[in-house]
Amino acid sequence: MTSRRFSADVYAQRLRAAASATADAGLAGLVVTPGYDLRYLVGSRAQTFERLTALVLPAHGEPTVVVPRLELASLKESAVTELGLAVRDWTDGEDPYALVSQALGGGTAESSGPQAVQVAVTDSMPALHLLPLAGVLGAVPVLATDVLRRLRMIKDAAEIDALRKAGAAIDRVHARVPDFLVPGRTEADVAADIAEAIVAEGHSEVAFIIVGSGPHGADPHHECSDRELRSGDIVVVDIGGPYEPGYNSDSTRTYSIGEPDPEVARRYAVLQRAQRAAVDAVRPGATAEQIDAAARDVLAADGLAEAFVHRTGHGIGLSVHEEPYIVAGNALPLEEGMAFSVEPGIYFPGQWGARIEDIVIVTADGALAVNNRPHDLVVVSAE
Amino acid sequence: MTSRRFSADVYAQRLRAAASATADAGLAGLVVTPGYDLRYLVGSRAQTFERLTALVLPAHGEPTVVVPRLELASLKESAVTELGLAVRDWTDGEDPYALVSQALGGGTAESSGPQAVQVAVTDSMPALHLLPLAGVLGAVPVLATDVLRRLRMIKDAAEIDALRKAGAAIDRVHARVPDFLVPGRTEADVAADIAEAIVAEGHSEVAFIIVGSGPHGADPHHECSDRELRSGDIVVVDIGGPYEPGYNSDSTRTYSIGEPDPEVARRYAVLQRAQRAAVDAVRPGATAEQIDAAARDVLAADGLAEAFVHRTGHGIGLSVHEEPYIVAGNALPLEEGMAFSVEPGIYFPGQWGARIEDIVIVTADGALAVNNRPHDLVVVSAE
Repeated sequence: MTSRRFSADVYAQRLRAAASATADAGLAGLVVTPGYDLRYLVGSRAQTFERLTALVLPAHGEPTVVVPRLELASLKESAVTELGLAVRDWTDGEDPYALVSQALGGGTAESSGPQAVQVAVTDSMPALHLLPLAGVLGAVPVLATDVLRRLRMIKDAAEIDALRKAGAAIDRVHARVPDFLVPGRTEADVAADIAEAIVAEGHSEVAFIIVGSGPHGADPHHECSDRELRSGDIVVVDIGGPYEPGYNSDSTRTYSIGEPDPEVARRYAVLQRAQRAAVDAVRPGATAEQIDAAARDVLAADGLAEAFVHRTGHGIGLSVHEEPYIVAGNALPLEEGMAFSVEPGIYFPGQWGARIEDIVIVTADGALAVNNRPHDLVVVSAE
Repeated sequence: MTSRRFSADVYAQRLRAAASATADAGLAGLVVTPGYDLRYLVGSRAQTFERLTALVLPAHGEPTVVVPRLELASLKESAVTELGLAVRDWTDGEDPYALVSQALGGGTAESSGPQAVQVAVTDSMPALHLLPLAGVLGAVPVLATDVLRRLRMIKDAAEIDALRKAGAAIDRVHARVPDFLVPGRTEADVAADIAEAIVAEGHSEVAFIIVGSGPHGADPHHECSDRELRSGDIVVVDIGGPYEPGYNSDSTRTYSIGEPDPEVARRYAVLQRAQRAAVDAVRPGATAEQIDAAARDVLAADGLAEAFVHRTGHGIGLSVHEEPYIVAGNALPLEEGMAFSVEPGIYFPGQWGARIEDIVIVTADGALAVNNRPHDLVVVSAE
């Protein structure tokens, strides 16, 4: 079985970087309840809700994990023990928010005054915990998003390896998709086969499956239906899922049942060039919106601007959709280690649609694609 | 397929009651993002995170649903349309928190002054939305828990019907458990069979499965393991899941592989009397802690006080664990319509454990059990 987390040194490095970013932002510390940020920082998948579990990371000082005694076991598979983090367990009757406050202040003698401390909290912290925490701290926290953004966006070597494995796994699923696309079968039948293949090829579960055939392919938000495939259909297949230790795959290929109409083939070739142009534009220093424009310009030059109705891509990692968003208006300069989708599509309502999607990683030399299936329209038998 | 929500009049009644409770608490309104409260109030299972979806329920005035235009479809299966609620969809670039503020203030001419409005928010609202909302409102919200507690605790007729169906379904699973408990099979093997049976008997999914055999039965938090069952084992089986429209089952029975040791049988009989005593103590006006004490006293009278290490029960509904908690220190008087577990257990570390659990509903005449399997230790073949 693939490991459920990285080695402890990966998390040690992330904790140091997060503390440093917290200090740079002038904050006293971070408080992180269960969710992607906690998983990112210490490899914990704890899902507690009612009783507070929180990683408390002071800007200066040692991190502490505050956890209900009853739920100590939830830390087992995390790196908390191996990292030697302080664990402060609590039982019903104790005030866990006061423990968080102590863990924030314990490291700095200077902060012992009556002054309220400004802390940042993970964006998923529920009101149930945030409001009493704000009460104890005497100040409303801010979101940790800004502090953690760059860390979460720039994938480290362990994450890049995980994304590449996830990409190879979804490529193996796409390699099997032609066998599933048989006229007379429904989109739902195909989706069921794909679900099985996603797990069989090594994902821990299915995150999403889009099988958009014929006119359904023209709706980028379509999932699947009881529509039966027929000869002549163009079929958009957009699939992915998490691969241990939890990094997601996400790849789209478009299939044609039988030889496509020449006009379909012609427009698809433009889309293929648009996707290639966007991937080719990826390099450190290019902005997110430049990548978006690179795809959009190719389509526009062929009169297909109106057919491309969504952004070009989204970041990916522990979450399927995260920063950076590859979209007009995002002037963020790309940096080595960012990972995102490049997925232009063209949509003709009531008729058909097509999309090509790879996940790429920014390297010094440009884009490293984690998906490597051919980009051509895949023609499958109409028999 | 069983309906995914109740009829619209059920939600209309709940919305009226929630608005009335909000006014009684002196609050300007409730803001409810996706989660159990939203599902309770309008039957929506929306799971949006990044973009704000919220039911805004002013204390005086009409409710509004604020929803990203991209995610309008997430309202489809809810009662929002049938109830004729105002829907204010928004697109990227608009400030959804300002829309919430407008929806709160729109109904009352008096609230148009510069005064900050005190609103309550659902306990699951993430910091991502709560902090900007607090900024726009100019006041830190309070938790809606107090306002919604009584509503969520007192089950209406539709909920009681749903809980009874869930209870009957888990009873059918327990009826099949003896076939799964074969010496040489592991707890995990048994859990896999139970998972299949939970769904086959009508639940929409599995919520939890505990198979605690031999010494594992002495740990109330054990789930399952690769331990092989053997002759002489006492096995605690605690299982449940949601049944459409989402109300949970939760029932424990204890099994003996082969005839039990006489001392085991004797102690089990005491547990059975304790569980019976607690159920018999249920009636409107009795307090939650009296129900707990009823079970505890029977065990204590037989020297088993130390063996009963947890509370006697928890409320149940859309959530597996909710109020009322049947625990020492909770002086809450029971009312007709409350639903909770009665589940005393006895645990002998390193040896064995036993637990008996039914969900009961408080009626004018006392407890109505939704689980109706016999309470005896179930002896299965050791062959």
